[in-house]
Amino acid sequence: MSLVERFGVSMSPELLKAFDARIRQKGYANRSEAIRDIVRNYLVEAQWQEEKQTVVGTVTLVYDHHTRELDSVLTEMQHEYHDAIQCATHVHLDHHNCLEVIVVRGTSKQVREIGDRLISARGVKHGKIVCTTTGEGIP
Amino acid sequence: MSLVERFGVSMSPELLKAFDARIRQKGYANRSEAIRDIVRNYLVEAQWQEEKQTVVGTVTLVYDHHTRELDSVLTEMQHEYHDAIQCATHVHLDHHNCLEVIVVRGTSKQVREIGDRLISARGVKHGKIVCTTTGEGIP
Amino acid sequence: MSLVERFGVSMSPELLKAFDARIRQKGYANRSEAIRDIVRNYLVEAQWQEEKQTVVGTVTLVYDHHTRELDSVLTEMQHEYHDAIQCATHVHLDHHNCLEVIVVRGTSKQVREIGDRLISARGVKHGKIVCTTTGEGIP
Amino acid sequence: MSLVERFGVSMSPELLKAFDARIRQKGYANRSEAIRDIVRNYLVEAQWQEEKQTVVGTVTLVYDHHTRELDSVLTEMQHEYHDAIQCATHVHLDHHNCLEVIVVRGTSKQVREIGDRLISARGVKHGKIVCTTTGEGIP
Repeated sequence: MSLVERFGVSMSPELLKAFDARIRQKGYANRSEAIRDIVRNYLVEAQWQEEKQTVVGTVTLVYDHHTRELDSVLTEMQHEYHDAIQCATHVHLDHHNCLEVIVVRGTSKQVREIGDRLISARGVKHGKIVCTTTGEGIP
Repeated sequence: MSLVERFGVSMSPELLKAFDARIRQKGYANRSEAIRDIVRNYLVEAQWQEEKQTVVGTVTLVYDHHTRELDSVLTEMQHEYHDAIQCATHVHLDHHNCLEVIVVRGTSKQVREIGDRLISARGVKHGKIVCTTTGEGIP
Repeated sequence: MSLVERFGVSMSPELLKAFDARIRQKGYANRSEAIRDIVRNYLVEAQWQEEKQTVVGTVTLVYDHHTRELDSVLTEMQHEYHDAIQCATHVHLDHHNCLEVIVVRGTSKQVREIGDRLISARGVKHGKIVCTTTGEGIP
Repeated sequence: MSLVERFGVSMSPELLKAFDARIRQKGYANRSEAIRDIVRNYLVEAQWQEEKQTVVGTVTLVYDHHTRELDSVLTEMQHEYHDAIQCATHVHLDHHNCLEVIVVRGTSKQVREIGDRLISARGVKHGKIVCTTTGEGIP
């Protein structure tokens, strides 16, 4: 489990300097950590391309809770997909606007479908889906 | 407030048919709703390009909570930015893996910086930032 | 062929104003033209998701033509895929750097594979694939 | 000039295996080449964020050349920007459809503006801008 392999990467000094500047800006502790993140990102992309793989998505919605019946529509949708929806967090942005983040687990197709339905509800001002992973199969 | 303007859009029948199929698949109730969403998406993009505009981002992290000290590093970072971080939701994905969604409010530069620092922490397997809006200025 | 359908879109005056500002900035002559472009963009995306559909891609490469054997490697690759590669344009950016744009036609899988191979060749500094269309089926 | 630095990267065997599979699929000769490409990609992104940096873009357009006056509109636009437009390549896709790739050099703002204007012209079915580099400053 704690086994680690090591390999060498060669680069011109100029390119290496530019890489170091960029990862310092992003907050990485060292080059290995940055490169491992890039590789894991590749793997998560691949999981989303496989139809039967279980993935996790988060759906972020911003909406005006004064929109007629939106609250109950969103709640109803979430209950309809209660097998897939793990939880939802609600933030009161101001008097009118709410943000909700919904965590969904399923096949990539299911997660996208649930996200699309929530985002397309009347009164939702803005919505985005993040494609992430259950962590399984991502060493 | 409830004022609505109406304008006409012309399109070949083939293109209209394809549009209708696509928005039905996404779950939109009608064409106006789909087009309004596209327009609001434009506006949120523009907000993220303006340096001084206050925006909201959600940061999704997947990590192994067994990674030494990661929990405390993430918590410490969040306290450091407590002015900007509104809340965090934690989901236990399995014995090893956790998902955390953090809601951040600030300028786009601040939100990106906080997101980058959280994502680059050692042990975070995957992370993504969603660029959304406070809802203000998005009619 | 010149048949046109018309439908109405309703929007709050504020949203309409923001839409108009954005499409003026992009150079659109009118709202219908902008909306038609968004719809056609949807359709091209769908074509790239269908495995058997014939699509067109352009592959942009920037490289240092002093890199040993790169020229001949790129030429050889292009001959290997001569059925799919329609043409290539070469621009001399400066004493060292060249830009080449290669137009590829095939299934989305083929086009991506050819693009990936060209971009991954040693000495290519930067490469990107554009996913576009033969125009067929895009009214 | 031919100086090369070398540094070590550590990774779990599982992650390394997944990385190797992915870069083999993309056609990379070795890990260093793949990692150098990722780093150069970072640098090109940074160039496009700096307002005064000279960059290169390619604009891919697909259009029906039977659209009234489109040919002359596109040609006229290109002449208007002749300082920035380096060259254009035209491909006859079928009886109706043409593809044109235009190479533009300027600040990122100029390149985007020219690309937006070309793409928004009436009759252009699909258009995309690739953000690439003059190669200068990308070691």
